[in-house]
Amino acid sequence: MRLGCRSAPVKQNRQDPVQEVGMFRNKMPRYEILSEDAMSKLDAGWRRIVTEIGVEFDSERALTLFREAGQKVEGQNVFFDPEWILEQVALAPREFDVQARNPEHSIHIGGDAMAFGAVYGPPFVREGDVRRDATMNDFERFAKLAQVFPVLDSAGGVICEPNDTPLDSRHLDMTYALQTLTDKVYMGNVVSGVNARDTIRMGEILFGGREAIEQTPVSISLINCNSPLHWDDRMLESLFEYTLAGQPCVVTPFILMGAMSPVTIPAALVQQIAEALTGIALTQLIRPGAPVIFGSFLSNIDMQSGSPTFGTPESGIGLLCTGQIARHFGLPFRSGGGLTSSQVADAQAGYEALMTMLPTFLAGANWVMHSAGWLEGGLVAGFEKFIVDVEILQMMQAEFTPLEIDEDSLAFGAHLEVGHGGHFLGAMHTMERFRTCFYRPLLSSSENYERWMRNGSLDTNARASKTYQAKLEEYVAPPLDDAVRLELEEYVVRRRAELGD
Amino acid sequence: MRLGCRSAPVKQNRQDPVQEVGMFRNKMPRYEILSEDAMSKLDAGWRRIVTEIGVEFDSERALTLFREAGQKVEGQNVFFDPEWILEQVALAPREFDVQARNPEHSIHIGGDAMAFGAVYGPPFVREGDVRRDATMNDFERFAKLAQVFPVLDSAGGVICEPNDTPLDSRHLDMTYALQTLTDKVYMGNVVSGVNARDTIRMGEILFGGREAIEQTPVSISLINCNSPLHWDDRMLESLFEYTLAGQPCVVTPFILMGAMSPVTIPAALVQQIAEALTGIALTQLIRPGAPVIFGSFLSNIDMQSGSPTFGTPESGIGLLCTGQIARHFGLPFRSGGGLTSSQVADAQAGYEALMTMLPTFLAGANWVMHSAGWLEGGLVAGFEKFIVDVEILQMMQAEFTPLEIDEDSLAFGAHLEVGHGGHFLGAMHTMERFRTCFYRPLLSSSENYERWMRNGSLDTNARASKTYQAKLEEYVAPPLDDAVRLELEEYVVRRRAELGD
Repeated sequence: MRLGCRSAPVKQNRQDPVQEVGMFRNKMPRYEILSEDAMSKLDAGWRRIVTEIGVEFDSERALTLFREAGQKVEGQNVFFDPEWILEQVALAPREFDVQARNPEHSIHIGGDAMAFGAVYGPPFVREGDVRRDATMNDFERFAKLAQVFPVLDSAGGVICEPNDTPLDSRHLDMTYALQTLTDKVYMGNVVSGVNARDTIRMGEILFGGREAIEQTPVSISLINCNSPLHWDDRMLESLFEYTLAGQPCVVTPFILMGAMSPVTIPAALVQQIAEALTGIALTQLIRPGAPVIFGSFLSNIDMQSGSPTFGTPESGIGLLCTGQIARHFGLPFRSGGGLTSSQVADAQAGYEALMTMLPTFLAGANWVMHSAGWLEGGLVAGFEKFIVDVEILQMMQAEFTPLEIDEDSLAFGAHLEVGHGGHFLGAMHTMERFRTCFYRPLLSSSENYERWMRNGSLDTNARASKTYQAKLEEYVAPPLDDAVRLELEEYVVRRRAELGD
Repeated sequence: MRLGCRSAPVKQNRQDPVQEVGMFRNKMPRYEILSEDAMSKLDAGWRRIVTEIGVEFDSERALTLFREAGQKVEGQNVFFDPEWILEQVALAPREFDVQARNPEHSIHIGGDAMAFGAVYGPPFVREGDVRRDATMNDFERFAKLAQVFPVLDSAGGVICEPNDTPLDSRHLDMTYALQTLTDKVYMGNVVSGVNARDTIRMGEILFGGREAIEQTPVSISLINCNSPLHWDDRMLESLFEYTLAGQPCVVTPFILMGAMSPVTIPAALVQQIAEALTGIALTQLIRPGAPVIFGSFLSNIDMQSGSPTFGTPESGIGLLCTGQIARHFGLPFRSGGGLTSSQVADAQAGYEALMTMLPTFLAGANWVMHSAGWLEGGLVAGFEKFIVDVEILQMMQAEFTPLEIDEDSLAFGAHLEVGHGGHFLGAMHTMERFRTCFYRPLLSSSENYERWMRNGSLDTNARASKTYQAKLEEYVAPPLDDAVRLELEEYVVRRRAELGD
């Protein structure tokens, strides 16, 4: 019998309550690049790490749980029995739901479901030629953009740092904005256990109490490992709070190869497995059956400058492997996004974002953070880049939709109608389908040169600038019950005072 | 016994003479998206087209060959027995070599080999903000860039139209430039049978006579279908000339869905099979065993404007299917490239180029035209875009290199050295590998913001401009025997006079 602060198992809602009006299901094959032999070598690798090197947990609560579960604890370091880890991991659900306050925006995590959230964490924003500290106004405008585009399932969490709000109560402002400006799934704050408890409490207010959010979770929270092989105190505090409340965490090794892991991809992969699985094992000690997501944030540094780099070949390979590994362990996984090192929404930003996003779809990532707006290695949330990424995301969803091959789509009759060397523009088969047959771009231009010149010879960045401004105009606040809004506001005001801001 | 202008079978050189110093072999798995059921529906589809609708050949020579081979000819239209087509197709080699005058640049076509050529066909060029008619000077500079970058196996053929040279003898100037400024494989001219014969003759001069080029071909030529279902006279004239000389043609349905085919992808695929296989069957009537490549140029139009669009989800799906189809028929195939509709080398150019290039690698295309420099739907050859594409190509080759998972790459010792929460920058394992462990960008920037600002805050297009200019400075003319050069020059002068220019 394991003890500790573990509460009752989460009741998994086996009946999918999600209406999934907008949610994407990836029915295309996964691109799997690891042979059975390769997988077994990686498997031996993480076992060796957890057995011989161990993983540090900067948390007495965690260490107590591990000790009680029979794992060998020396100081903060825990040496694991790999078989025990796998037993714990097997307690986690393979798939689960997360509810949004608009049921049409609720999502499913796992299987062939893919959900997409906006960029998370940047202290700066870029609009056109201006790069500056992010503000609450920026945060709100990004939240509105995430609400406007159906291709995004979530505005994410810290879309950008609202530097003009008080630090200690900022989590209240962000959570309130996410809950009120959008009716989609949102991410929890993880700066401290206090912040986590506030986020959970605000979820209870919005969704009708503790039982409702434990029944089907309402937030997803990002718990990063202090890689290599160290879980720090504040992250673990948040992990405890969310897991106890049945709210899923994304247990994420944060690896820039060459800095937080060895420079070789296999080494990074086994380290990632060791870190993720030990974190996930902890969640199942805290609350058996708690929903949890195998996280991956895996790229590399530039070995000349030490700068982080994104959209690299190495990160692409890592992503493809990670998907296969997560499936191997039967866990939903987080990876991918529209990552780039580029300072502006230029060609590099375009190809690096797709260098990450296309493998994201090939790997079938279930929860995709940083899907829109990421610039400059994650330091900047870019308004123009947000639109570039939405375009890429829409294209990917169109591309990863299986072909229907039938008498109708084979269109034999159209050939009879058109004949040799003719054209199909006016054919009946075309006329019946021309509105929906191809993906219609949001941003990309195929204007001929003369028309493009007449329209101001705007490059993609300049067009994206017009697009995000127009889309903000289209924003309509999703309805919210006045009493609920008032209760949320009162909570924010009270807690802000209590936190001394 | 089949008659016609067929010559003796090409002796396939079974021993690979290629040194492949720079050639890329794609050892990663193919991404196959068509189920067996889907493939059999497509198979039934092309059979129905060639049987019931037929394919037109605007060439008496071709019609005679088909008639003599027992196919039903009505006017210019040929109704085929699909089984007979497959017998013909089976005569074509699955793989073959193409020699370059520098043996280190010779290439292999088929299997896991992938060869890359520059953009082909644009009448215009773009340098920075200037878009203008292409000239011979542009052609030569692009040829030099293709020579400089090892990632390119060929400068292609009509890299851009040298509009300042006489039309009737332009093919001589281009072939001479390709043969002398580069020592890589080049493409043949296909404007007419006359041009094809000149190209072949110049190949004989460069490579030591007819027997030498028949033994191992020295050029690859692009033969487009006038889709739907019509092969025109001039293209077929060139097809005859090259095939008789044992020079491979890329038999390519030219399909923009919605214009040259129905709007549905399955219909485009079966049309593509019907067109390609009938053209390939013809090559095997002309010369059994002649090397030939299954070609694909498959994208769609914008149904609102009628403009061609590239890097679309539909073209990506088409490309993935095409690879699978070509393998189904046991043929090497051409597809892919760095296609885009964008007017400049901006974000759209970046993501659209990769939207085509990543599926090109997933599909394992064997001969990849338009790998560098394509802009504005192929109307423009862009100097900056050339550099963007080379960067993408280099990244792809790095990404599609299988992982080595062994004791060394698992780097257990590095963990022992670094410990929990440390960093690997100075670890022995890192120091031994830091120069080569990650892909080093040609163009992409991961500079921090302050350094990027100090360096002029150049976007990718501006950096690419500096790069191509610097690379042109690095160009060194590959050595060429004076007597051969003189013979080529005399041929060009004589033929120009004969052609009346």
